[in-house]
Amino acid sequence: MANEAAIGFMDSGVGGLTVVKEAMRQLPNERIIYLGDTKRCPYGPRPNEQVLEFTWQMTSFLLNKKIKMLVIACNTATAVALEEIKKSLDIPVVGVIMPGSRAALKATRNNRIGVIGTEVTINSKAYATVIQKKSPHTKVIQKACPKFVPIVESHKASSSIAKMIVAEALNGLKKQQLDTLILGCTHYPLLKPIIQHVMGKKVTLIDSGAETISEVSMLLDYFDIAASAKKEAVREHEFYMTGSQNLFNNITKEWLNLKEINSRKINLKK
Amino acid sequence: MANEAAIGFMDSGVGGLTVVKEAMRQLPNERIIYLGDTKRCPYGPRPNEQVLEFTWQMTSFLLNKKIKMLVIACNTATAVALEEIKKSLDIPVVGVIMPGSRAALKATRNNRIGVIGTEVTINSKAYATVIQKKSPHTKVIQKACPKFVPIVESHKASSSIAKMIVAEALNGLKKQQLDTLILGCTHYPLLKPIIQHVMGKKVTLIDSGAETISEVSMLLDYFDIAASAKKEAVREHEFYMTGSQNLFNNITKEWLNLKEINSRKINLKK
Repeated sequence: MANEAAIGFMDSGVGGLTVVKEAMRQLPNERIIYLGDTKRCPYGPRPNEQVLEFTWQMTSFLLNKKIKMLVIACNTATAVALEEIKKSLDIPVVGVIMPGSRAALKATRNNRIGVIGTEVTINSKAYATVIQKKSPHTKVIQKACPKFVPIVESHKASSSIAKMIVAEALNGLKKQQLDTLILGCTHYPLLKPIIQHVMGKKVTLIDSGAETISEVSMLLDYFDIAASAKKEAVREHEFYMTGSQNLFNNITKEWLNLKEINSRKINLKK
Repeated sequence: MANEAAIGFMDSGVGGLTVVKEAMRQLPNERIIYLGDTKRCPYGPRPNEQVLEFTWQMTSFLLNKKIKMLVIACNTATAVALEEIKKSLDIPVVGVIMPGSRAALKATRNNRIGVIGTEVTINSKAYATVIQKKSPHTKVIQKACPKFVPIVESHKASSSIAKMIVAEALNGLKKQQLDTLILGCTHYPLLKPIIQHVMGKKVTLIDSGAETISEVSMLLDYFDIAASAKKEAVREHEFYMTGSQNLFNNITKEWLNLKEINSRKINLKK
């Protein structure tokens, strides 16, 4: 039975838009409501309790919009909050860590997988735990890259300073003979060309967000809640942010290739 | 939490083994219990009520084995019984039609998709309905190939008579400018080289069974019921059939590349 309700996406900032971009490509019939907590971004350096609190605030906002499915399009929030939120809600809840891990295990040939992410994601060892549970002989090498999110949030992902910072951060990983590297933060696909250049062509980059949309697609079918096909692509996507609306609109329009977006600044704090 | 119970697979005959083969490759930690109703195969020409009745009998047998998930590895049974069985059981139930349809939509470039299957599957229009619900402008051309299953069940998939029968059956489809063809019967991957030869290299063949295992893999994670990794690959797979045990064992060992299998002939009728 068709379900025309929207899918809710949330992220600490604009990174989750990389997941939305993939959703718009793979699921053209679905309506999207996006919330980026840009004012309090990055979540990466924050204590777990605070990440959990903020993630619940975003969840409540989206639930009020009557969403049919929730995508935690943020690795930090997934690592800390997915399990609790999934257990509490009666709609499907999807995070980005499991799909990325599955894709990396499918891609690797030498069983040496790298993971880059924020400090919270890396300290949680969420990717390493999932991967080694499935495949104990696979080596997982992790590296926190706390400087990457601020680059993306300030709309400087193609600057020369971005190149320097990425090269410096990944220097150690280059010596690890990885054949697969998980972009364990939804902001990082915006730095993908630079990361690929630094790591070399032989390393497969896994975009956890894109993998997540395949899972969303499957679950929409499994629970029989996919939207019906529209004759004309009706775009009623809604975007919400907590920080600068201008900066958000600019990066969103550029990244999603949209001329106009329906966006509104909101306040999450009670 | 790891769940060491087996995944149950069922089919009207040996065709579902093509799905099992993919499960053994993608999910090496999972234990498999397979039931092929070889005595009453093919299901394709039978009335829907009978297919439903037989499918319920197979389901009951597998439920008694305490399976954690059920895969209806048979297009005919999926078309007729998936919805009812899924609603009735409290374990996840997966069919082969939805995953095959999704994969075909992802593969096609010219939006002309062919489907071959048994008479029941083709008459049910199950693939066409799913595909056109998602993408109304996609053309779906169907063709029932009732002679294919008996060829496979009699272990003659690489004979010269098989080549003649396949070429004759697909003759009309070749003129339809398809770029994607769904093997809408789990027996057909055993005829894949011949089908590919007849259709030509430019046509992408979609193996619904293989696609189904990607869905099984996701659902094992989503419901947190994947088996834990084994240090040594423990093979405790069980195979049951209702017809000739010798014929079943031969084709199973050959197709799954196993030296020995743990199999037993059973009686499904009450």
